[in-house]
Amino acid sequence: MSRSEPAAPARIRAVGVCLKPEQPQAAATLRGLVKWLAERDLPVVLDEEAAAVAERPATPRDVLAGQVDLVVVLGGDGTLLSVARQVGSRPVPILGVNLGTLGFLTEIALDELFAALERALAGEIRVEARMRLDVRALREGRELGRYLALNDAVLTKAALARMIDLETRAGGAPVTTYHADGLIVATPTGSTAYSLSAGGPILMPELEAFVLTPICPHALTQRPIVLPASAEIEIAVRTRGGDVQLTVDGQEGLALREDDRVLVRRSEHFLRLMVSPFRNRFEILREKLRWGAR
Amino acid sequence: MSRSEPAAPARIRAVGVCLKPEQPQAAATLRGLVKWLAERDLPVVLDEEAAAVAERPATPRDVLAGQVDLVVVLGGDGTLLSVARQVGSRPVPILGVNLGTLGFLTEIALDELFAALERALAGEIRVEARMRLDVRALREGRELGRYLALNDAVLTKAALARMIDLETRAGGAPVTTYHADGLIVATPTGSTAYSLSAGGPILMPELEAFVLTPICPHALTQRPIVLPASAEIEIAVRTRGGDVQLTVDGQEGLALREDDRVLVRRSEHFLRLMVSPFRNRFEILREKLRWGAR
Amino acid sequence: MSRSEPAAPARIRAVGVCLKPEQPQAAATLRGLVKWLAERDLPVVLDEEAAAVAERPATPRDVLAGQVDLVVVLGGDGTLLSVARQVGSRPVPILGVNLGTLGFLTEIALDELFAALERALAGEIRVEARMRLDVRALREGRELGRYLALNDAVLTKAALARMIDLETRAGGAPVTTYHADGLIVATPTGSTAYSLSAGGPILMPELEAFVLTPICPHALTQRPIVLPASAEIEIAVRTRGGDVQLTVDGQEGLALREDDRVLVRRSEHFLRLMVSPFRNRFEILREKLRWGAR
Amino acid sequence: MSRSEPAAPARIRAVGVCLKPEQPQAAATLRGLVKWLAERDLPVVLDEEAAAVAERPATPRDVLAGQVDLVVVLGGDGTLLSVARQVGSRPVPILGVNLGTLGFLTEIALDELFAALERALAGEIRVEARMRLDVRALREGRELGRYLALNDAVLTKAALARMIDLETRAGGAPVTTYHADGLIVATPTGSTAYSLSAGGPILMPELEAFVLTPICPHALTQRPIVLPASAEIEIAVRTRGGDVQLTVDGQEGLALREDDRVLVRRSEHFLRLMVSPFRNRFEILREKLRWGAR
Repeated sequence: MSRSEPAAPARIRAVGVCLKPEQPQAAATLRGLVKWLAERDLPVVLDEEAAAVAERPATPRDVLAGQVDLVVVLGGDGTLLSVARQVGSRPVPILGVNLGTLGFLTEIALDELFAALERALAGEIRVEARMRLDVRALREGRELGRYLALNDAVLTKAALARMIDLETRAGGAPVTTYHADGLIVATPTGSTAYSLSAGGPILMPELEAFVLTPICPHALTQRPIVLPASAEIEIAVRTRGGDVQLTVDGQEGLALREDDRVLVRRSEHFLRLMVSPFRNRFEILREKLRWGAR
Repeated sequence: MSRSEPAAPARIRAVGVCLKPEQPQAAATLRGLVKWLAERDLPVVLDEEAAAVAERPATPRDVLAGQVDLVVVLGGDGTLLSVARQVGSRPVPILGVNLGTLGFLTEIALDELFAALERALAGEIRVEARMRLDVRALREGRELGRYLALNDAVLTKAALARMIDLETRAGGAPVTTYHADGLIVATPTGSTAYSLSAGGPILMPELEAFVLTPICPHALTQRPIVLPASAEIEIAVRTRGGDVQLTVDGQEGLALREDDRVLVRRSEHFLRLMVSPFRNRFEILREKLRWGAR
Repeated sequence: MSRSEPAAPARIRAVGVCLKPEQPQAAATLRGLVKWLAERDLPVVLDEEAAAVAERPATPRDVLAGQVDLVVVLGGDGTLLSVARQVGSRPVPILGVNLGTLGFLTEIALDELFAALERALAGEIRVEARMRLDVRALREGRELGRYLALNDAVLTKAALARMIDLETRAGGAPVTTYHADGLIVATPTGSTAYSLSAGGPILMPELEAFVLTPICPHALTQRPIVLPASAEIEIAVRTRGGDVQLTVDGQEGLALREDDRVLVRRSEHFLRLMVSPFRNRFEILREKLRWGAR
Repeated sequence: MSRSEPAAPARIRAVGVCLKPEQPQAAATLRGLVKWLAERDLPVVLDEEAAAVAERPATPRDVLAGQVDLVVVLGGDGTLLSVARQVGSRPVPILGVNLGTLGFLTEIALDELFAALERALAGEIRVEARMRLDVRALREGRELGRYLALNDAVLTKAALARMIDLETRAGGAPVTTYHADGLIVATPTGSTAYSLSAGGPILMPELEAFVLTPICPHALTQRPIVLPASAEIEIAVRTRGGDVQLTVDGQEGLALREDDRVLVRRSEHFLRLMVSPFRNRFEILREKLRWGAR
């Protein structure tokens, strides 16, 4: 698979740090990390949030991503989703460190930070190429917006009326017209986010697949569908008057109206995510979903 | 049970007609009905929609409900929900005739209209007292709005952010704080509407119960709960900033904000709904949900 | 409601003890309990399991239930289900103490045992009358077996072939023919047991209702149905050749064949269960289902 | 992908016919088909069921599969599953014609039989390589049985006790120990069979994936998991005393006991299934699951 990582990852010569400053441990952790990197003579580049806390110069995240060989995210899954979007197509690997409860994306606990960094510097951490979505919204052939999504693209009603009609095609073939609260197109990475709450299955990250999960569909038999990532998904708004909202990774929104179309396909730009050396995917699922407990 | 019907229903001396005029068969059906009633010397009172089509004097639905012994609704379930709200506390029985596909509330098919009316006039149709919700929205002790609901009261997010926090009590005891897209409080009648799409069970209409169905809850174990109708439900908006929408029967809306509360209890005003003499509740379920078919 | 408890419960003059002996803490707890009761001059009657551990005379559980004013069950939910069956129609109240993880029925934790007993002796514990099922299996009009169930009556396939056909009526009216792995008829008490795993809702214990939950139904729209407890449920085995198993409270089984019928109705014998004074129903749900956690 | 079909399929010089004789139309259809093939000078080889009806010589299905260039199955999905197993590793393509209601596997309706055959003979029908499972049951290192499955391998309880414990690994890593009625490992083809009734998602046939769907799991958060087909699944029976049943494609069974293991991996032998030229995968889903209807 072309997604697989080279045996020898690039040597890390500079490290970027992105921060979610509101977390209680944010400032102390950041200072500890800056000190730790300085002791190893590793130049550090700080995003605006980290720079404000450390009282040092700031670099926008998209610029930062081009200047370093590793981005450390100190925050939660939401912070990592933001950073992923700002990193865009740059191939820099990301290490997600959770300042609160462990996340699905921020798999490194706070007390594992330096052990994980040691391994990352030694080239001993595995990097996963996570599939992303290339999401385009079109109106009469004109592009309204284009987004790179790590988790999902979601169409929902934007107002009082509950149900919307979403005519959906996959690889050119009509799937169905969903009459529902909304529709989620999720990556395997996003399958444990909104899609799971809406009744979708869990997809292992290495699958080359999308899952199409309707939200509260009127037809009870419209169950989640897993499709090969080679199939382009096209969703046309068919609700009279429109009033539909496109949301990408739960963070960016766009208002749509009748006959607008959303095209979703696999992006050529995978996100390079460092995988926790301390717990595997199933351990994270067991911990986050409290399996074993009823 | 105080809901039960007297053995001998009131004699029908005047009939009200409410219409959903956009349906294809609306005009012809209305004319046929007006003629049929005239032949039987039964005075007819028309709502504004029916009056416009019949070119006769109009009476607002709430006034109409006080002038007649039977209200015939020609339309769909949405029309019947509107009429139910406008009828309010008046004890007039309602006969729902569906101009399109059979509904859960409009159980009489178009070609059964006159046979059903014959029976209604002869006092041979059973009238069910359907439980309704008394829904009040409060801000700092002040009442923002009060509604009578036949189906459900629904709290949902009103904007981009997906999840809202709804601290919920039943009969004074804390149930849980739902972290979800929303929460539905449904009557047995409403259990086959939105609640069903959100994963709720089907409740037989004669049950004295509510069902609390969360919409896409973050905690996968937060399953629908069926509560006795004697328990008052209190839902407090706990989302920072608020931006929550209360919707009643899918038709009326109210914007809520942080710390607003919604109180839901059984209304003392049941809706008196004529039950189809041609099919029972389970036949309607089988037909609407296509049981037997996979 | 005739189920409600008299204001002044009967004075407790003798206590029965039933034990699940395999639990680690069983012997020590039993000895402590026997000593505690002796110090208060309360005669104690032991079932066979408790008697064997305490090396004292044994009384069968059904006899014991007629000799005491309170039965303390030391074990888990399974033990309490057995005791409930053996107690049968006797109105003696039961206090369930869990020797392991808290149960839905055994709501008292081990370290709350004596505090709960103090309150029980003082008449300060609320006793709930839990609805039970009267389950009869019939073959050509002849009764094959009759059972009293606190949780549920379940019909499942007994062999290789997956699906069975169960023609179901409620209050004489045909509901549907389930083509499924099986069908659960649960009380509110049983709604948090097997029915919950099969996708059923949670019913509050005080509801006078059954829930009918199909297990893996072929028709995806056959959702759980909540019915008033006044409706007798009749289930006829329609699978060619039969090979169906009736299981009551997960503990007693009976082999059925084609055209056998199972009748389920509300028993006139409620189980009198002492309610934990330390946590309410919703706290138990939150704890057992780990709400709040995802 | 090595699964893809050569541009020019093999010329069809002999046709095998397998029959489900109990279907009403079976005899007449078979006679018509034999006549149609004779008119085209195509030798026909009949399985035992077809031979009995046509009063001609019979050939066992496994032998037949080595003598022909196309196997026509006249029956339902169950018949096709049997034939698939008997065909084993032979690469002969199969055309499924449904004698009753259209199936997920028998996609050709009876009145499309000759039109489909015309296209098949002309090399104009697309053949899909459907992934199959290689299922092995082991006891103390010894192989108890080995099966080729098109739909699924299912472990379930075999007796009264409801729950079984299944310790599950994927690609060597522990997934979880399911405490459930059972566990389904399904192919994409099997995702619309048992797995769907148990709450699993729909997988498009071309996906190289398995779905692991627990049946009525005790832990409500144990949701279906979709895994890459490269991961070998290992399931160890951990129920005290065992009493677990392995069922393959709903047709073959094997009794398992404690510590027995079931290994499931992708078979190297794909089944070559002719795809209906008259309706695509989504049309079949819409028709079978009645989408559009509630």
